[in-house]
Amino acid sequence: MSDADLPMHESESVPTESWEGDYGNHFPNSRRVYVEGRGGVRVPMRQISLAGGEPPLTVYDTSGPLGADPHRGLDPLREPWIRARGDVEEAGLHRLPDLARDPRHGTAEIPPRLNHEVLRGTGPVTQMHYARRGEITPEMEFVALREGMDPEFVRSEVARGRAIIPANINHPELEPMIIGRAFKVKINANIGNSAVSSSIDEEVEKLRWSTLWGADTVMDLSTGQNIHQTRQWILRNSPVPIGTVPIYQALEKVGGVPEELTWEIYRETLIEQAEQGVDYFTVHAGVLLRYVPMTARRMTGIVSRGGSIIAKWCLAHHRESFLYTHFREICEIMAAYDVSFSLGDGLRPGSIADANDEAQFAELKTQGELTRIAWEHDVQVMNEGPGHVPMHMIRENMEKQLEWCDEAPFYTLGPLTTDVAPGYDHITSAIGAAQIGWYGTAMLCYVTPKEHLGLPNRDDVKAGVITYKIAAHAADLAKGHPRAQDWDDALSKARFEFRWEDQFNLALDPVTARKYHDETLPAHGAKVAHFCSMCGPKFCSMKITQDIRDYAAEHGLDTPEAIEAGMAEKSSEFLDRGAEIYVPGD
Amino acid sequence: MSDADLPMHESESVPTESWEGDYGNHFPNSRRVYVEGRGGVRVPMRQISLAGGEPPLTVYDTSGPLGADPHRGLDPLREPWIRARGDVEEAGLHRLPDLARDPRHGTAEIPPRLNHEVLRGTGPVTQMHYARRGEITPEMEFVALREGMDPEFVRSEVARGRAIIPANINHPELEPMIIGRAFKVKINANIGNSAVSSSIDEEVEKLRWSTLWGADTVMDLSTGQNIHQTRQWILRNSPVPIGTVPIYQALEKVGGVPEELTWEIYRETLIEQAEQGVDYFTVHAGVLLRYVPMTARRMTGIVSRGGSIIAKWCLAHHRESFLYTHFREICEIMAAYDVSFSLGDGLRPGSIADANDEAQFAELKTQGELTRIAWEHDVQVMNEGPGHVPMHMIRENMEKQLEWCDEAPFYTLGPLTTDVAPGYDHITSAIGAAQIGWYGTAMLCYVTPKEHLGLPNRDDVKAGVITYKIAAHAADLAKGHPRAQDWDDALSKARFEFRWEDQFNLALDPVTARKYHDETLPAHGAKVAHFCSMCGPKFCSMKITQDIRDYAAEHGLDTPEAIEAGMAEKSSEFLDRGAEIYVPGD
Repeated sequence: MSDADLPMHESESVPTESWEGDYGNHFPNSRRVYVEGRGGVRVPMRQISLAGGEPPLTVYDTSGPLGADPHRGLDPLREPWIRARGDVEEAGLHRLPDLARDPRHGTAEIPPRLNHEVLRGTGPVTQMHYARRGEITPEMEFVALREGMDPEFVRSEVARGRAIIPANINHPELEPMIIGRAFKVKINANIGNSAVSSSIDEEVEKLRWSTLWGADTVMDLSTGQNIHQTRQWILRNSPVPIGTVPIYQALEKVGGVPEELTWEIYRETLIEQAEQGVDYFTVHAGVLLRYVPMTARRMTGIVSRGGSIIAKWCLAHHRESFLYTHFREICEIMAAYDVSFSLGDGLRPGSIADANDEAQFAELKTQGELTRIAWEHDVQVMNEGPGHVPMHMIRENMEKQLEWCDEAPFYTLGPLTTDVAPGYDHITSAIGAAQIGWYGTAMLCYVTPKEHLGLPNRDDVKAGVITYKIAAHAADLAKGHPRAQDWDDALSKARFEFRWEDQFNLALDPVTARKYHDETLPAHGAKVAHFCSMCGPKFCSMKITQDIRDYAAEHGLDTPEAIEAGMAEKSSEFLDRGAEIYVPGD
Repeated sequence: MSDADLPMHESESVPTESWEGDYGNHFPNSRRVYVEGRGGVRVPMRQISLAGGEPPLTVYDTSGPLGADPHRGLDPLREPWIRARGDVEEAGLHRLPDLARDPRHGTAEIPPRLNHEVLRGTGPVTQMHYARRGEITPEMEFVALREGMDPEFVRSEVARGRAIIPANINHPELEPMIIGRAFKVKINANIGNSAVSSSIDEEVEKLRWSTLWGADTVMDLSTGQNIHQTRQWILRNSPVPIGTVPIYQALEKVGGVPEELTWEIYRETLIEQAEQGVDYFTVHAGVLLRYVPMTARRMTGIVSRGGSIIAKWCLAHHRESFLYTHFREICEIMAAYDVSFSLGDGLRPGSIADANDEAQFAELKTQGELTRIAWEHDVQVMNEGPGHVPMHMIRENMEKQLEWCDEAPFYTLGPLTTDVAPGYDHITSAIGAAQIGWYGTAMLCYVTPKEHLGLPNRDDVKAGVITYKIAAHAADLAKGHPRAQDWDDALSKARFEFRWEDQFNLALDPVTARKYHDETLPAHGAKVAHFCSMCGPKFCSMKITQDIRDYAAEHGLDTPEAIEAGMAEKSSEFLDRGAEIYVPGD
């Protein structure tokens, strides 16, 4: 959007902007600004200054407070909003559970500043609960400003279940965001240590790195040691919602043997994570016992970690999982902290061959059932989707999800549109992600180049996030999101006017764009040149277009009518050269 | 395809395979094989050997003869086919035109071995001409084997104009391929020196490099010095069709001043390039004078180099271009060498803002007119398309092209689905390319990460080709090309069975896939491990799936019926635990 379009909506005060700081070396000519709304709500945005008298472009910004110290954590901006509602009680200072002190589970310490006061709702404290009561919360006000939408519309979408604002009351550092198909398409980045690799510091750094480039939420998929400690570091430093898959930690507690999982261990894990501030839980409650044999003839069986754990449990105990049988109790826990469901798709296809099969769609129908039960408890819900799906089978996923899950937000992994390119699955999946985003998926889970092969490093995380920002933005354009095209237009105009620096600075990744230009034409002069390295000066179409426009304006040939008139005048001249004229027939 | 599916069609002899060599370090465990058809036709394929008793996978191969010396050129495999038709005359040994000897135009020498005997048709010598006469040429036989299609079907598609086999009689080194929407989606890579950068050696190396990774055709877009010499080196070393934009060289001949272009200079350039063996010419004959003002209010004007040159000429002379007025003469020249038209889209949109506008579609209609005229001369035609188009506007491009251009093959650049990611335009455009390929586009012109910024180097060419192979293959899957999914299935099966080496070797880029795996788990043992670095052993869904299958088979729980029976048996046990059971309602 250009500044002229900054959201005005129902706030009576004109939003003002206060300067806060710069973005280091990654976003030259960008600065942090705030758009201010009612009740002290201040929404951070990134403003890109342009040359040539162009107004600055202000864009959505997920990067959070600039320059924060990870040992102190971020300021708890939502704390006054949460406490002002008068529906929470204090449950003591956060402390490391005994199990996490077991050396087998890691020995990392948490700095005292990162231990927060734990809150618990005295009843449902979910955004859906307030929305249904007709209340526009500061969180809704925040996302309305952020998206340029009316706050009442935000409220109504949350009340209807068509959008969620994942916002645990124990994650006050959060800058609220919304996931729903009427809003900007969001992207999720996965981080997390594993038994094989990586440390807490690396995970916090990956969090900051992925939000810097545009991750809207981050899932902590840690499975190794120090799971609890890593999560505490991440939550206290995260401006974006954090999602987890609690069954991973529960499985660590029973030594990695799925059959030994119990409802009690799972429940304890849910509460532990809810008290830390996790904003959404992936829960594979739709994996039913009778669906497991449906995967027997698949090319790649069950490829969801959580799905395979639950399937194994179901088969070994020959009964439905505790996720399904205790679903209402799970809802009650989640309502007391405002943790949103991300109903897992444990039976998603893991290959083109398995796309849209019986097992996948059986589970999706159950996801729909569970969605409606969660809504009975005022718990916010999104549904996870595939996976690996060829292009012509993507739309069916979206249509069935909308129908069976009553328009709850869809949150898909890719989908990957072919299996033949390991090492490039950020691309195979961005093709599918852009399409399903256009069709109505609200959030896209990123895929990095390391998918199927190894753990993503810093460069892979960036490649995954940028690729998914592309897919999400392409989807926003196709959906006709009101602000989306302003960004494209600003960049295209800079390109046409040979404002090279603006073209770089407006890019999703300015430094890479500039570096690529410098590889061919490193001289400073090239950045003010009216041509580029692809074609050189004689073959520059944009330069010739400028010449054409000047010539046409000068000679009064700038309309089709003027051209026709000129041709009529020249007709006698044309006739003299009859032999040379050939006009193809229709 | 697996070997069992190797094409048998109407040939009475069973195709045999002869081993020819390996692929160096880029495709481990691959070897060159030939599928043999009637009349000595031998089609090169790449065969990937697999472990675990799996049959090898044989895939389409564009890389040409292995290990050829660029100073000698490739063997002229089509020469006997061309001469056997008895419709060509010899026009002397190729020699450097006087202008090319002008030091201003470059001083490079051509090794004597690269100077070929020039041929000229005594009448039309196009594949369309033969197809319409009902002849199945060796070229058609070759592509039928290559695609696994019936040769008579190939002939009928070429006769109807729905497919082309670009195959200049002066390019006997060519391994024939077909461009049409009933066949595999093809990709084109652009190479070419410019006034700013690069040399002949680099261009020949880029040719070999891009066909190694899968480029189906290559366009030589050279605009600097030594244009003629560079092209001669490229043609004599190219197993794939070479396309050019002759107006570029014509413009060099008049010192870069578009207004000074004449029909005579252009005609001479066409013949010069046709005699060298160029297989298709981009001709911007659809840029009419009255369309030029339609670009005046565009965000980015005219972005095609050729389009802007012609527009400028039209406006300066206030008449239609010589491309349009001499179109039938151009057809006659092209028919005498079998050069195919790639009717340029000189007014394609250069930004999201300009997509699908009046200027673009006016030209497309004229492309249709010109297509039908070319067909009157038995000249093969494809139509070029955009450019920059948001996803929701892509399909309209395909539908209008099919309708207005009578189903001639469409050949698009991307389209790019957003403008905000310079440095990543291989991805912004692959999203659009995959879609338009699915909708029916026959060939996709690649875009590299350097698009809009600089000249692609070796890594960029590879990134562009691999990205477009992904888009094309995703489109083949979505179109339901009969052989496409075999490749995905082979790779997915290898993945599920933990055949790591096979998974790497089946990848579009095996070495990169292996490198990514090694970054996390370098030990040899990891390549035989039944888990991967993403999750570690306890969380490996594929390992757990194997356990589930074993357990289910052992306990007779491998069908939904068995599961239901087991549940009934357990019902009394379940009832005892009534308090713990909760089954959500429908």
